[in-house]
Amino acid sequence: MTQDDRILLAHGSGGTMMRRLIEDIFIKAFDNDILGRLDDAATLMLPPGRISFSTDTYVVKPLFFKGGDIGKLAVCGTVNDVSMTGATPAFISVGFVLEEGFPVDDLRRILTSMARAAEESGVAIVTGDTKVVEKGGADGLFINTAGIGVIPDGIDIHGAGCRSGDVVLLSGSIGDHGIAVISEREGLAFSTSVESDCAPLNHMISAMVHSCGADVHALRDPTRGGLSSALNEFAESSGVAIEVDEDIIPVKAQVRGACEMLGYDVLQVANEGKLIAVVAPDAVDAALGAIRNSPYGAEAEIIGRVLEPAKGSPAGKVFLNTSLGSRRVVDMLVGEQLPRIC
Amino acid sequence: MTQDDRILLAHGSGGTMMRRLIEDIFIKAFDNDILGRLDDAATLMLPPGRISFSTDTYVVKPLFFKGGDIGKLAVCGTVNDVSMTGATPAFISVGFVLEEGFPVDDLRRILTSMARAAEESGVAIVTGDTKVVEKGGADGLFINTAGIGVIPDGIDIHGAGCRSGDVVLLSGSIGDHGIAVISEREGLAFSTSVESDCAPLNHMISAMVHSCGADVHALRDPTRGGLSSALNEFAESSGVAIEVDEDIIPVKAQVRGACEMLGYDVLQVANEGKLIAVVAPDAVDAALGAIRNSPYGAEAEIIGRVLEPAKGSPAGKVFLNTSLGSRRVVDMLVGEQLPRIC
Repeated sequence: MTQDDRILLAHGSGGTMMRRLIEDIFIKAFDNDILGRLDDAATLMLPPGRISFSTDTYVVKPLFFKGGDIGKLAVCGTVNDVSMTGATPAFISVGFVLEEGFPVDDLRRILTSMARAAEESGVAIVTGDTKVVEKGGADGLFINTAGIGVIPDGIDIHGAGCRSGDVVLLSGSIGDHGIAVISEREGLAFSTSVESDCAPLNHMISAMVHSCGADVHALRDPTRGGLSSALNEFAESSGVAIEVDEDIIPVKAQVRGACEMLGYDVLQVANEGKLIAVVAPDAVDAALGAIRNSPYGAEAEIIGRVLEPAKGSPAGKVFLNTSLGSRRVVDMLVGEQLPRIC
Repeated sequence: MTQDDRILLAHGSGGTMMRRLIEDIFIKAFDNDILGRLDDAATLMLPPGRISFSTDTYVVKPLFFKGGDIGKLAVCGTVNDVSMTGATPAFISVGFVLEEGFPVDDLRRILTSMARAAEESGVAIVTGDTKVVEKGGADGLFINTAGIGVIPDGIDIHGAGCRSGDVVLLSGSIGDHGIAVISEREGLAFSTSVESDCAPLNHMISAMVHSCGADVHALRDPTRGGLSSALNEFAESSGVAIEVDEDIIPVKAQVRGACEMLGYDVLQVANEGKLIAVVAPDAVDAALGAIRNSPYGAEAEIIGRVLEPAKGSPAGKVFLNTSLGSRRVVDMLVGEQLPRIC
């Protein structure tokens, strides 16, 4: 296929044109023996024990943005979700929905980006599917990925694992992804330099789990709904209250400015390469060290703590100690702020 | 939510409305403890050994058709793909893309249908994702499923496993799904009674693998591209020639009539509940018995054989002995016959 080629309905037919698309483009991009067998399902070896399994569909608009594209996002997002149980992600599936007329050259760029993210995170893309819908039936390209990872023995990390006295760590500045995408989409004046933080966090998490073991209680990447949704989910699932300190939560000046201009609460803006870790007090130094040692965690901070149940800190609530010295409840996003952010 | 409710962009926000949609609708439909934890990834136990991993996205139009709907299809399709390695499917992930304005009542029907198919096939829907795109950004609803199954020891079934002398079995009549969907879509006159064959084939396959073991060499469900694509993939992957007998391949009279009217080759029309099994000659009786013993395989037949390499039967080719007594090459579908058939 040449650069000018476009996706046709026949590329989703199950016939020779689909076969050629798969062999010429997909197999070449995601080179590995398992995928190359072209069976309906991949056959994989896993060590005995527990596995982590997750899926996400990506509908981000635009497909290309500063700091990433839908392909990088589709691999990193699922790698990260699988990692949030403490698992080491190993295998990824990928399902494409392509709109008739989609430029093959854009598809190649996206696949290259997926392959690069898979290589960095150490996962293999082992099985896939392609559907083509008629012009107008979808907006360009949607990607679903599902991922499988292996959970180390003795590790039990989940959203309900927060205990009073635990410490809340955040791996870096918030809001970068949401502002990068929205500025690209709306062509805002501040768009020059905010990049998406889209990144695979699995190596950071493995290092932390390796050094802190069962002292890591809960992990989440604050994507849609931002830091506020992730913390509220923790508080609700664990039956605890959480407080965080506004002054300490890293926010880039440009992101802060954009949020003010657009009327967004930065705590509710999506991230794609940030980690919230809730750890036992004794493990804070080791956990923070492991996170800061990652290229994606140099600016990690202790942003808060899980509260002892007491009057004024009811379970299921998240509190923010504001820069002005007041204290307010942090709510989950109610309406929709940024559609198609991931 | 009431029957008149429609999906809003806020249902994909990551905030409270998404949480409510998940808790009120998804968790209730797919009731199980793993999904109920609401973590970003599910934690699962698998026995040691090999697993089968597969994914498909479903974009069928219309969403509801005789014999099934997109939900049943999304579960059965992935259950079947996972089973084509001889695996016992165990876990399913599900990713929804919903168009703003989609009726919540239709979503409920689809989820009920998914839950029923999951129950019949014995798989648990353990993790999921929901994205909402603006009106016009997608056509109603797309569903991705990925599935994990466990491969029994000593079983190695794949598309490259066909050997000369093997026998080709087909579990029943072909073309039903494609004709059911296209007749629903186009409102054709013959539409009254052809139903999709959409069904989970895993119990049928488990029974066959249990009784025939390593004598089962290759399995495929002839979906998009129909019987012709599946057989051509076998021939190409295995480096063999295959011949099938037109007279023996079961085709319903209404399906045959519809194909003639529409100019379709029934060998290229999609199925969603049929199995092609390539087995060693000694295992034919046991395999056919196991297939016929399933409610989805009562009309199974021996439709052909894998040929000894010889002049006139080059590797990679599929031949049809026609009803007229001639012999022709069966090609894979070249263009697109039935877009959005699955």
